[in-house]
Amino acid sequence: MNSRISGSVRVVGAGLLGTSIGLALAKSGVDVIISDNSPSAESLAISYGAGRAEAVNDLPMLVVVCVPPELTSQIVIDELKKNPQAIVTDVASVKKKILDSLSESGADLSRYVGSHPMAGRERSGAIAGRADLFIGRPWVISPTSFSEPSAVTQVENLAIELGAAPVKVTAEEHDRAVALVSHLPQVVASLTAAQLVGANREDVALAGQGIRDTIRIAASDPNLWVQILSANSAEVLALLEDLNRDLDKLIVAMRSSDTEEGQAILRETLEKGNFGAAMLPGKHGAKPTEYAVVTVIIDDKPGELARLLYEVGEIGVNLEELKLEHSPSNQIGLAELFILPSAAEKLTHELTNRAWRLVS
Amino acid sequence: MNSRISGSVRVVGAGLLGTSIGLALAKSGVDVIISDNSPSAESLAISYGAGRAEAVNDLPMLVVVCVPPELTSQIVIDELKKNPQAIVTDVASVKKKILDSLSESGADLSRYVGSHPMAGRERSGAIAGRADLFIGRPWVISPTSFSEPSAVTQVENLAIELGAAPVKVTAEEHDRAVALVSHLPQVVASLTAAQLVGANREDVALAGQGIRDTIRIAASDPNLWVQILSANSAEVLALLEDLNRDLDKLIVAMRSSDTEEGQAILRETLEKGNFGAAMLPGKHGAKPTEYAVVTVIIDDKPGELARLLYEVGEIGVNLEELKLEHSPSNQIGLAELFILPSAAEKLTHELTNRAWRLVS
Repeated sequence: MNSRISGSVRVVGAGLLGTSIGLALAKSGVDVIISDNSPSAESLAISYGAGRAEAVNDLPMLVVVCVPPELTSQIVIDELKKNPQAIVTDVASVKKKILDSLSESGADLSRYVGSHPMAGRERSGAIAGRADLFIGRPWVISPTSFSEPSAVTQVENLAIELGAAPVKVTAEEHDRAVALVSHLPQVVASLTAAQLVGANREDVALAGQGIRDTIRIAASDPNLWVQILSANSAEVLALLEDLNRDLDKLIVAMRSSDTEEGQAILRETLEKGNFGAAMLPGKHGAKPTEYAVVTVIIDDKPGELARLLYEVGEIGVNLEELKLEHSPSNQIGLAELFILPSAAEKLTHELTNRAWRLVS
Repeated sequence: MNSRISGSVRVVGAGLLGTSIGLALAKSGVDVIISDNSPSAESLAISYGAGRAEAVNDLPMLVVVCVPPELTSQIVIDELKKNPQAIVTDVASVKKKILDSLSESGADLSRYVGSHPMAGRERSGAIAGRADLFIGRPWVISPTSFSEPSAVTQVENLAIELGAAPVKVTAEEHDRAVALVSHLPQVVASLTAAQLVGANREDVALAGQGIRDTIRIAASDPNLWVQILSANSAEVLALLEDLNRDLDKLIVAMRSSDTEEGQAILRETLEKGNFGAAMLPGKHGAKPTEYAVVTVIIDDKPGELARLLYEVGEIGVNLEELKLEHSPSNQIGLAELFILPSAAEKLTHELTNRAWRLVS
């Protein structure tokens, strides 16, 4: 099979990420050597198709270190020594602290490039491994100032081979970003879920999808997260202090929530939450959508939607996204046309002229 | 069509809940009258199949008030007067404050029963209405001390007709429960999403599914939520103060996260989050699962899973749940058998004896 990866790849650590990387590379026909301190984890990953066991004369060209953050720098140092022909990367969720340890160790940083695939599951271990885990996800690449360009290319190729989008940032930039989009949500989810402990079962039985989503990642592995949070404590702390200030302010507002002033602060917080939620990129790491929506009532019969889209094309407006809502008990549907805000007035006007029924 | 509902049902308010109730009842063949202050919302809901417009001599037997919380008590009072033959219920997310207003008003509470379907979407309006919105969800029924038993039965029948599970609790119990499982998560999601405002686009671009789930409900309607939070401020405030204490403690721990003491508090918070997340009931309001898991490696070919399940039956162990993980690049799969903890040892022993490969 064709692959951007030449030579064997050694994966150290058969957890969720190591196994997923092994599965995906093996699927592309790459010779994958997978190893783990735990013989049972290693043999499970091998049975699962994530690679083969190490052999005496293996000469991997790329080593991917997939061990817990607090072990990462030491294993990277060991692998750089053990495989002088190989590029070494890691996939840990923090980058700066690992880079600092490596720099202090005097390791050969020309052959090291840090990385971090922005993919995961709240389940862990080889059993949760999936070849498609990285598809469409960002994969951070953090070269050191000593990394050889060819080493960087090799790690970028790894990300691309696995279907991810390489994003080159420094270790500092990475740690600041993940503090916001990953570490803060983890802390918040854990703190919120913790409030359920000791609650009446009858109260918790009323839980719906909202709280389920809000605290889903609270099921994550505490051992892993203690390491991540303490390795990125300065960045996370700054965000927690901001959050704390906002929470204090909200609590004061809740104490006078029957006054206009109190309600104004509640509204402000909720509206700011709307803006924040809208900033998230689309499912596959696309740019945030800032579209206008024009909603059209259509007969829910074959040909109607096609006719609508044909006419939108005639009008000369580009459709960025389309959502459909079908009425389950009637013969109509609602087509939501997502377009650039600048085109909204024209589209509304033209569709109305053409006798389409719009929802105002 | 057969229906538990006899006579016409009047739905006041054609938002998400009113439209969804109308759609579901109309689907069961019930005569639904749907009205809204906004003519365009009303006509959309009618086009959508959620009912018909009001006629002069309508005599609904049940009125469902689906208007924003701060309007609910007044509309309930109006509808009780206007329809002396009818039972009146509402679907607002807070119950105590509405009940207090109704009691003060001197309205005929024998024909009123409060209710609250635990279902929703972060989208609002008739356009988001769905006949299947309530299926498998709890539906809180809060009778007053004056409610006629037949009135309670009629509102319970409404819930059952729509596929929901009626849960009878007092207004106070309801408000305490939703403060925990709905209002607290809303505030937390909004506060967390608000931290994204002003962040670098490049940082936010690294967001994955974790933060997306954690802040999903931050997209909810601020106007609605100001009303909900201020109507249930005492209960929500108590929870926010607990959360604030835990956050303060965590911030102190993060400042010394390189020490054993600091890490111990981090671990404690994360573990407590694990326990809290595990308390959530199953998807359809079932009891929380507290099962043991036995994982079996099976050949991923027809008949193997059937053979395994047959043998589990022979061994005499009840399977509570089954999850499958398929290896995408190999011919094996992993079957996770969820069973009562008391049966785990027996099952492990017997399956091993029968030469099944278990994951330890």
